[in-house]
Formats: sequence, structure tokens, C-alpha cells
Amino acid sequence: MSADWFRRRFLPRGPLPAPRPPRPRASPVPYRRPRFLRGSGSSSGPTDASRRPDARPVRSPVRGRSLPWNAGYAEIINAEKSEFNEDQAACGKLCIRRCEFGVEEDQEWLTLCSEEFLTGHYWALFDGHGGPAAAILAANTLHSCLRRQLEAVVEGMVATQPPMHLSGRCICPSDPQFVEEKGIRTEDLVIGALESAFQECDEVIGRELEASGQVGGCTALVAMSLKGKLYVANAGDSRAILVRRDEVRPLSSEFTPETERQRIQQLAFIYPELLAGEFTRLEFPRRLKGDDLGQKVLFRDHHMSGWSYKCVEKSDLKYPLIHGQGRQARLLGTLAVSRGLGDHQLRVLDTNIQLKPFLLSVPQVTVLNMDQLEPQEEDVVVMATDGLWDVLSNEQVARLVRHFLPGNREDPHRFSELAKMLIRSTQGMDDSPIQEGQVSYDDVSVFVIPLHHQGQGHSSH
Amino acid sequence: MSADWFRRRFLPRGPLPAPRPPRPRASPVPYRRPRFLRGSGSSSGPTDASRRPDARPVRSPVRGRSLPWNAGYAEIINAEKSEFNEDQAACGKLCIRRCEFGVEEDQEWLTLCSEEFLTGHYWALFDGHGGPAAAILAANTLHSCLRRQLEAVVEGMVATQPPMHLSGRCICPSDPQFVEEKGIRTEDLVIGALESAFQECDEVIGRELEASGQVGGCTALVAMSLKGKLYVANAGDSRAILVRRDEVRPLSSEFTPETERQRIQQLAFIYPELLAGEFTRLEFPRRLKGDDLGQKVLFRDHHMSGWSYKCVEKSDLKYPLIHGQGRQARLLGTLAVSRGLGDHQLRVLDTNIQLKPFLLSVPQVTVLNMDQLEPQEEDVVVMATDGLWDVLSNEQVARLVRHFLPGNREDPHRFSELAKMLIRSTQGMDDSPIQEGQVSYDDVSVFVIPLHHQGQGHSSH
Repeated sequence: MSADWFRRRFLPRGPLPAPRPPRPRASPVPYRRPRFLRGSGSSSGPTDASRRPDARPVRSPVRGRSLPWNAGYAEIINAEKSEFNEDQAACGKLCIRRCEFGVEEDQEWLTLCSEEFLTGHYWALFDGHGGPAAAILAANTLHSCLRRQLEAVVEGMVATQPPMHLSGRCICPSDPQFVEEKGIRTEDLVIGALESAFQECDEVIGRELEASGQVGGCTALVAMSLKGKLYVANAGDSRAILVRRDEVRPLSSEFTPETERQRIQQLAFIYPELLAGEFTRLEFPRRLKGDDLGQKVLFRDHHMSGWSYKCVEKSDLKYPLIHGQGRQARLLGTLAVSRGLGDHQLRVLDTNIQLKPFLLSVPQVTVLNMDQLEPQEEDVVVMATDGLWDVLSNEQVARLVRHFLPGNREDPHRFSELAKMLIRSTQGMDDSPIQEGQVSYDDVSVFVIPLHHQGQGHSSH
Repeated sequence: MSADWFRRRFLPRGPLPAPRPPRPRASPVPYRRPRFLRGSGSSSGPTDASRRPDARPVRSPVRGRSLPWNAGYAEIINAEKSEFNEDQAACGKLCIRRCEFGVEEDQEWLTLCSEEFLTGHYWALFDGHGGPAAAILAANTLHSCLRRQLEAVVEGMVATQPPMHLSGRCICPSDPQFVEEKGIRTEDLVIGALESAFQECDEVIGRELEASGQVGGCTALVAMSLKGKLYVANAGDSRAILVRRDEVRPLSSEFTPETERQRIQQLAFIYPELLAGEFTRLEFPRRLKGDDLGQKVLFRDHHMSGWSYKCVEKSDLKYPLIHGQGRQARLLGTLAVSRGLGDHQLRVLDTNIQLKPFLLSVPQVTVLNMDQLEPQEEDVVVMATDGLWDVLSNEQVARLVRHFLPGNREDPHRFSELAKMLIRSTQGMDDSPIQEGQVSYDDVSVFVIPLHHQGQGHSSH
């Protein structure tokens, strides 16, 4: 993406053209649940049962089907917020080949390679909005993008330190001292590959949705194991935490209009055209009214962490670029997340104002060094969409994990049972620690990934 | 500042105009050392003595002169890097009045007010470059800007929580629930005032330098006590740390072309015109050469935390926007810091390419709650320009502090003695812990601020 491209795409000189009516050239993305749920209940469309919390089924893989690392999974559909469960999930083995062989990728279960060179594992959650299509496309696609991006740099991942030049055919010396000085490590290539994969996947989704005349977007949270490290890449408001006996460690941050306020305000400062005169980029404690004109009120602009006062002018009465607090915060009155995939066609209702220029598809990546961690018997990573974290804190989830696991050591399916129990806790069942009236009406999806005995066995041929 | 202003100022449409030759209308800013050093040795111009490390004097206030909170101070001039000591310092009492009285500010020692309402203290270090003028102007000016910005919001600082409307004359309800929901606290107003003060000071310096036909810039590091809290605001590569018996806590981060790489690369992505076709915004492990053309080499762009490989094109051979590592990293081959005051006229040598659009004057502010901290006998904040931190780590400074203070409890001047000892340690004297050959040839300035018995005594009438 170049700056010129950005300007052409988002800053038309004349009056904005009407959004192109979608011209479907491909068939729409069919709704489905993750394939690893097959056999665990109805898998297409919502259940016929009433959507009362106690009637919505909590689904998880059938007993006997094991996910990578014996991870657990469970999900529940929302309470009639949308027709479909807009969450999606994917997991599988990730086989990185040294060369491209052009193998067809017709299986969702990620056995993507014929000649494997490096093997990893992959777990991903996608929380869709504006329809289920983007999340389904992401679940179908992101692992392939990731594999492709990793294969493009895999030669650089073999050495202790990535070489300055990828192929050994450079006629000039490869200058390892410069790579050394910059402190570039193998894991930086994996981080770069994750960043590129999210962007590539975003482009694929944009093309596919346009072709099929569909719309929508989704968040993406990925955990990937590779060469003794666990990489967690997040774009959106899902969350991953590490739970150990004596430690609860966040492995991701949430990206919302609130947490990315300064970045978003700054873009509106640089390109005021993006707001088409309909919004103010300034933040106030509440939306201003005519009565506030001429008064000094609290405000923040893009360069400010603190607050100050300004004299209210007429333009300050416009609808705010970011409005509302916490769960209610919305970007341009429309979207609750500021990073994710898709949303290429999303506009503010009844306007031509686009959301996409304010959204980032690039994830933040954190790295867990499994060798240094020396995972113990009941150390797990819990990944979940925002429906879980809206009603349970990290500490509450950690307490539930620590309470559940020791009593269920013999059950080979215990991590899915734990995931189911976590979801039931969001519905006010199972002696849930949540407060009265705080049940989750959202889609909720949870992976529980056990770390014990996993870090060591990484293969590297 | 508006986006239009930014574009007019930095993005001329036609060929760039030659930089205006400075037309001095005011007399140049006279060189001086901080006034609180009066009587402690020669105070104007460099010493006549040779600049060998052992011959350059370490200066500190004369015995008997006490700085706010009995803080210590010491400085040393560089080893012939420049004619003058480009570091500057200021400290004093900060009296915030409820109304503007227009009192003349003719004293550097900051007794700025007739009717005080809130009282704080202020310590500041400025590390100049391109001449001493900007740092001197900042030392003369920033406290006044800060006082003015605090006085503009002081009414909002009286209540437990700032009111939505500053004056009580609003005809609409002041909606405390919105301020409550946003979690806006009194300290956010102080942070906002610090942010505004740095920007106001930057504008003053720009005007003054243009009027006097001088050039230059400086970093700024400020510690300010107010209502039981210590605020540390930093723009540049100076550093403040808290040293306690069992803890060393950084109170600031450094802002350099390396630490702000993504912000700087992003601006060049948005406005490629700023590079005038002379620089590449991409980062490579080293500057590329003709031999690299067509090869796949390691690179990073603005959206990447990780690294990837790209096929080298001709435009990648240009000089990099950010070049060099660590201490040697330079923005546009010119500047080692990415935040600070001044530099309004600074251009890349022999070009019209301006540095200023890439620089921020806004500081990062951290807050130390003195009441919660319960400072002990030998808890201090050490503030110093980069000359100290280039050769001593936070831990080394902490060890020197902990070793020095207990043995010097009786000396009322011990914090200045400690500051002098820290500076001598950068010169390889006094059993210095630094490694052979690692002496500092830079200007070095140090404040040591004792915290014991200080948090409690804050006045608030």
C-alpha cells in the first residue's frame, strides 16, 4: 500500500461517488460452524430451540476428536442478537515447506504440505460483525496466508540469526554484523510473517466479499506455536491470557476506538476530508449541545494524553469521531473495534463516509518463550472472544481454571470441558462468579491450550 | 495547529523556496549558565582550562544555596565537542494563581506570583544541539508557559474531579456523570497542562530564534511536584529514574529516531513529499549498495514490528530516513532525537528537506503518587541528560546512590555532592564503575531530588 493509493482510495477530489452496488459474480460464502465441531450437534444455521440462555447449547468437539496439543474448545451462539453465530474458529497443524509445491488446499484441517520442513500449530478465533461472511472467510484463509508468508522467509529462519540476504547468491558479503547490531532475531521474521499474513488475508477477504456481493468484517486472534515459541497475534477485541499456578499474564491487548483514540484522531487531523464535515475529531466527556456553545469544556485532541478545556465552537457540536465509553464506544457511530479484517465497503449509515481508512488489519504480536517458561502441569493459554471478557475478568477466569483442572486430571477431554464451563459461567450457570444481570448475550468462543509437555517436542528437520 | 497549516507549512506545491536568510530583529540570546550556579566558578563562556576530563570542572551550587526540596545539582561541560555547554537547567517554586495579575517575570528563580493559590516545585534539564540558544530560551521560558497553562485550568483542579464546564456560569447541567464515566482525574488536567506548555514553549522558541537570527533545538525533561504528586514530562533522550532501597523505576522513556521509528516512517509514508525523493523511509540492516539490487534483503516498513525480506529496487539505495544504531541513530542523517523544542529552521545539509515535521514537542508524562509511595529516608529521583546514561546504567546509578547517601547523612549539601560524584563517575574518576574507554565526552547535567518528607507538605489553599 502506498500513500498515493491511500489518497486515491479514500480521498476523492470531487463529490464522493455513491458506493458501488455490489455486483455478485461469485456465490455467497455459505454459513457453517468450524469443521472440528462436526458430529457435535446441528452445524448449519442457528438452532431451532429458543435462544433463552439456558436453552442455547454450548457446543464443543465430540469426545474422541482431539485438537492440536489436546486443546479444548467450546462456543455458544448469541441471544438473538443476530441470526447466525458470527464467531468462527480454526485450528490445525501448520506445515512449512522449504519450497513451494503448489499443493491444493482443499482441506480445512490444515494438513497443507507434502514435504514439511518446520511444523507448528495454529489456533484462531474470529469475531464477525455485519454478517458472518468475513469471519468464515478468515477462518478459511488466514492459515494459508500465514503458511505462505512463513514459507517466503523460512530459509532465514534456519540460522541462529536471519541473514541480511535471503538467498546465498548475493555477490556482496552478507554483513552479519549489521543484523547482529540491529538485534534481529528469528522470531522477528515470524512476527513479520504474522503481520504480513493478516494484511494478505484482509485483501483476500476484500476481494471475495466484493465478488460475492457480501459485506462484513471480523476481529482476528491467533496463537501459533513454532520452534519452541508461542506467538499470539491480535487485531480486535478478543483476548488471550496465560494462566499458571501463580501468574496471570495478558498475551494480547484490545484494539478499540478507545484504546486507539490517538491514532484515529491523528488520521482525522491529517485527512479532515475523511470526516466529510459530519464529525468532530475532538473528544469531549459527552456529545455537546447548543447550550454548551461559548462555554469552556473538557476536551482531548490527538496529541494529548491529558485533558484540557476549550471554548466550544459550532463545529464542536458535530457528532464525535469516537463516541461512548467502554463497551459502548463506537468509531464514527458505527464500529466497536479499530483493528480487524474486512469492512472494505463499510460506510456510516446514509453517508459516503468510509470506516476502512481508520481500521488497521495489522496485529500486535507477543511472544512466549516456551523453553524459558518451563510449563507446569496445569499451565494453559485461554483465548476467547469479547463475549467472555465482557463478564469475566482475567482473574476470575484464572480462578475458574485453577479450580477446575486439578479435579479433572483423568479426563482426556478436560480442556474442552473447561472451555464449556467457562462459557456456562458467562450465562450465569454453574455457580458462576459473575454478578447478577451480567450474563453475556453475545456469541462466545473459547480455546483452552495446555502448554505442559508441548514446548519441548517441536520438530525442526 | 491544523492539518491545513501543516500542509501549507511543510508541503509547498511548487519547487521548495530557499530557506529564508535569518533577518535578526532582536539581539541574540546571551550565553549563560543556570543562575543558581552563581558564585560557583566562571559562569560565562567555557573555561580557559584545557578540556581534558580531569581538568574540566564539575560545577554545582555554592554551599549554602539550597534548591527546592534541597535537591542537588551538578554539571560538566563537554570535552571540546562545542564551544559552550549546550545543557541548561532551571528549578524553582511554581506558584499558581487563581487569577491573572500580570506580574512581571523578571526573575529566573521562579517566584512568579503575588497571590498564590497552589504551590509546586519545578526542576528542568534541557540538552541543546546546534548551539546553546534553544536550551537557554527553554530554561528561561518553559516554567512561565507551564504556570500559564496550569492557571488556565486551576479552577478545574480544585474539585476531586474536574467539572465538565470550567466556569460555573453554564446554563446547562455540568454532567458530572460523564466526567466520572470517562475516569477524568485532576492529574489529567496537569498532564494536559504539561503537554500544552511544551507546545507553547516550542512556539515561543521558534519566534525568538527567528527574531534573533539564531538556530538550534533542545530536549526537555521536567519534574514538577503538585498536590502530592510528582509529574515527570520528557521530550528527548534525557532520563529520570526513581531510586529506592529495593527498587529502581524508570520515570521516563527516551524519544529517538530508533524508539519512534514507526511514527516517523508513517509520516513519510503519508507525506512522501517530505523526503523530496532523497531518502527512503524503509529500514534495512545497513545502507544498501548497488550490489544489493535485485537481492532479497531484510527490511521493515512503518506498519511492521517484525522484519521481512524484500527484493531491492533502485529507490531502496537512497539514504535511509533513519540511519545507524543506538547512539549513532540519526533522523535524516542529522538529528539524534525525535522530540524536543526548537529546530524550526533545521534542514538536511545542502537541501531544503526540513526536520521539524518529523519532530514532536509534546512530552510523555508519568505520575508518581507521593502519598502512596511513602518515601523513605534515601529515596531520590535522579534526572540527567544523555551524557550520564550513555556510560552508566540505571542499576549502576542506583548502586552509586545507595552507596553514597548512607555515609553522608550529616552533610546538608549531600545531594549536590552525590550529583557531582555521579558526574565524576562518567569521567572515569572516583572508582567509577564504567568500563575503560567508556568516559563521557558530552555535556552532563544531573539533578538529585530527595523525596523524603516532601510529599506530605504540599500546600493547597
